[in-house]
Amino acid sequence: MQSETSLIDRYFRDLGAQRADVMLGIGDDAALLRAPAGEELVLTTDALVEGVHFLPGAPPRSLGHRALAVNLSDIAAMGAEARWALLSLNLPRADEAWLAEFAAGFGALARRYGVALVGGNMSRGPLSITVQMAGGVPAGQALRRDGASAGDLLYVSGSVGDAAAGLRVLRGEIQPETPIGQFLRERFEYPEPRLALGAALRGIASACIDVSDGLYVDTQRLLRSSGCGARIELNLLPLSSALREVLGPGAWRQALDGGEDYELCFSAAPGNTQAVEAAAVRAATAVSCIGTLTAASGIQLRDGNSVMQFSPFGFDHFRD
Amino acid sequence: MQSETSLIDRYFRDLGAQRADVMLGIGDDAALLRAPAGEELVLTTDALVEGVHFLPGAPPRSLGHRALAVNLSDIAAMGAEARWALLSLNLPRADEAWLAEFAAGFGALARRYGVALVGGNMSRGPLSITVQMAGGVPAGQALRRDGASAGDLLYVSGSVGDAAAGLRVLRGEIQPETPIGQFLRERFEYPEPRLALGAALRGIASACIDVSDGLYVDTQRLLRSSGCGARIELNLLPLSSALREVLGPGAWRQALDGGEDYELCFSAAPGNTQAVEAAAVRAATAVSCIGTLTAASGIQLRDGNSVMQFSPFGFDHFRD
Repeated sequence: MQSETSLIDRYFRDLGAQRADVMLGIGDDAALLRAPAGEELVLTTDALVEGVHFLPGAPPRSLGHRALAVNLSDIAAMGAEARWALLSLNLPRADEAWLAEFAAGFGALARRYGVALVGGNMSRGPLSITVQMAGGVPAGQALRRDGASAGDLLYVSGSVGDAAAGLRVLRGEIQPETPIGQFLRERFEYPEPRLALGAALRGIASACIDVSDGLYVDTQRLLRSSGCGARIELNLLPLSSALREVLGPGAWRQALDGGEDYELCFSAAPGNTQAVEAAAVRAATAVSCIGTLTAASGIQLRDGNSVMQFSPFGFDHFRD
Repeated sequence: MQSETSLIDRYFRDLGAQRADVMLGIGDDAALLRAPAGEELVLTTDALVEGVHFLPGAPPRSLGHRALAVNLSDIAAMGAEARWALLSLNLPRADEAWLAEFAAGFGALARRYGVALVGGNMSRGPLSITVQMAGGVPAGQALRRDGASAGDLLYVSGSVGDAAAGLRVLRGEIQPETPIGQFLRERFEYPEPRLALGAALRGIASACIDVSDGLYVDTQRLLRSSGCGARIELNLLPLSSALREVLGPGAWRQALDGGEDYELCFSAAPGNTQAVEAAAVRAATAVSCIGTLTAASGIQLRDGNSVMQFSPFGFDHFRD
C-alpha cells in the first residue's frame, strides 16, 4: 500500500499545465504563485459528493474532468482567466487504477485550459472531491450577477437540459438509441466550461452566472441579485436535437429545470447585440437570446401569446 | 427545511473579519480580491474527515476552529499572512444547532487572525470539511522546506505531543485528572496556528514546516527536502508538564510521534540564534532548540550519550 505522499507524487505532481508563474507547487506547506499587476484575484470552490453529484461507480475519468470543470465554469462566469487548482480528495481506499483514470480526466482538462495543479491533500473517507480554483481578472472588469437592468436582453450559451437528460440515461430512466444516449451522457460526464466566452464578454455583458442548478433557478439568482425580472420565450430556448428527440414537446421543461449544464446565462444591453454576437464568434461558442429583462420581478414564461406555468424543482441538497 | 442558499446566508455570510480588500465575497460565482503589489500569492487546502481526523460526534465548535486552524498553520509555515478562506462542507443533514456552533468556532478564529470567509459550498453527504486558505508573502521571502543546511540549528515552537495525548483522552484510552485532561483535550480541539511566529521568522529561518503528522515525520520531510539529516537531543524536546505527568518517562515518544500539534518546526543558521530568540519574543511564542542538522541523512536521536531507537507510526491515512 502506498502512502499519501507517494500517491500524490505518482498521480498528482506536475498534473495539468506547466506555468511560469508557479514559484512553488505541490510538496511544501502551501503553493507560491505570482499574479500579474493590475488584477483582481478570483477564488472559488466546488465539490462533488458520491450519491449527490454522481452515481456510485461513476467512471473516475469523468469525475476528474467534472470536478475541475464545475470550478472552471465559475471562473468563466466571472469573465476571468483560470490558472491554479487545488484538489482535496477523500477516497475510501487507495485504488491506483481509479487514481490513474481520475488524474487522466483532471489533467487533460487542466492542460486544455492552461491550469496547473499546485496543491491538495488526500484522506481516507467516503468518496468526495473538492476543487478550488484561483485565477485573475483585470481589476473592475469581472462579470458579476448584479449588473443587469430592465430592458437588457437575456442570453444562454450552448444548449440546456442535455446534461440532466444524460443523468437520466445513466440512471436507466430513459433509454434512447445509442448515439443520442451517448451524446446526452457525455454532456453530463464531460461538461465544457465556457472560459473563452466568459472572457470575451468582459465589457459587453451586464451580468453573468453559470448554469449549474438549472436555467430557471440560476436565472432567478441573477435577477434577484440585479433587482429585476425576465420574460423568457420558450421557443427561443436552445434545445439540442437529441433532447427534442428523447423528450418531445416537453423538452423545454428539462431545459429549464435540468442542472449540470455549465453553460453561461448572461444579460447585455440591446445596443450590445452585435458585440455579443462577435464575442460568441471569437469564443467559437453558440449563444442564444432567450428573452428580455423586465422591471417587474419574477420570470414570465411565454409560448407565443400564452403564458406558461412552471415550478422549478431546481437542485438543492438540503430541501427535501 | 432551509435551502443551501439560505443556510449559507444565515451562518456563513460575513463570517470572520471584514476586509477592505474583498471586492466581492459570498454570493456570486467566485470571490474577487485585491492583493498588494510585490507579493506572492500563497494557496493551501486541508480537510477534516469524520472518523479520520475527528471522532464521530465531535463538538462542532472545535471542528470549525480546527478546520480553519490546520490551514492557517500551513500559511504560518510559509511565513505568510493569512487573508481569505473558502469552505466546502459536506453535512449529512441541515442541523442548524450544529451549523451555529461550527460557524462560531470558525468565525472566532477567523476574526482573531483577520481572515474573511469569501466563498464556499455545502452538500449533503458524509461529514467532511475542506477549507482553502489564500494569503500573501513578500516575493521571494516565503519560508520553504528546502532551505536548511548541515550545521543549522533545529527548533520547534510551543510543546509537542499534547494534542495526540488529548485525542487519547477523548478516546478514553487515558484518564488523567480533570485539569490535565482538559488541557490536553483543548490542545487537540483548539490548536493555535503560529502565524505571528512564522511571519517573524522571515529572513531568519532557513527552512520551516508545520507539525501536523508528528514531529519526527514532519522533521524528516524538512530534512529530505533540504538534503540533510539531524541529530535531535531528547532532553531538549519541549514537553508540557501535563504530558510528563500523564505519560511519565515515555512522554518523548508521544512528542515525536503524535500528530495534530500545529507547531512550527524550523531551522536557522547558528549565527541567527539571537534573531530567532527575538522573533519568538516578538511573536510571544516559546521556541526550543532541539538539535543540529547534519550532512549525514536521517535522524539520530540522542539521550545524553546514548543513541535511541525509534520507529515513527506517523499518520498516514493510506498506509495500513
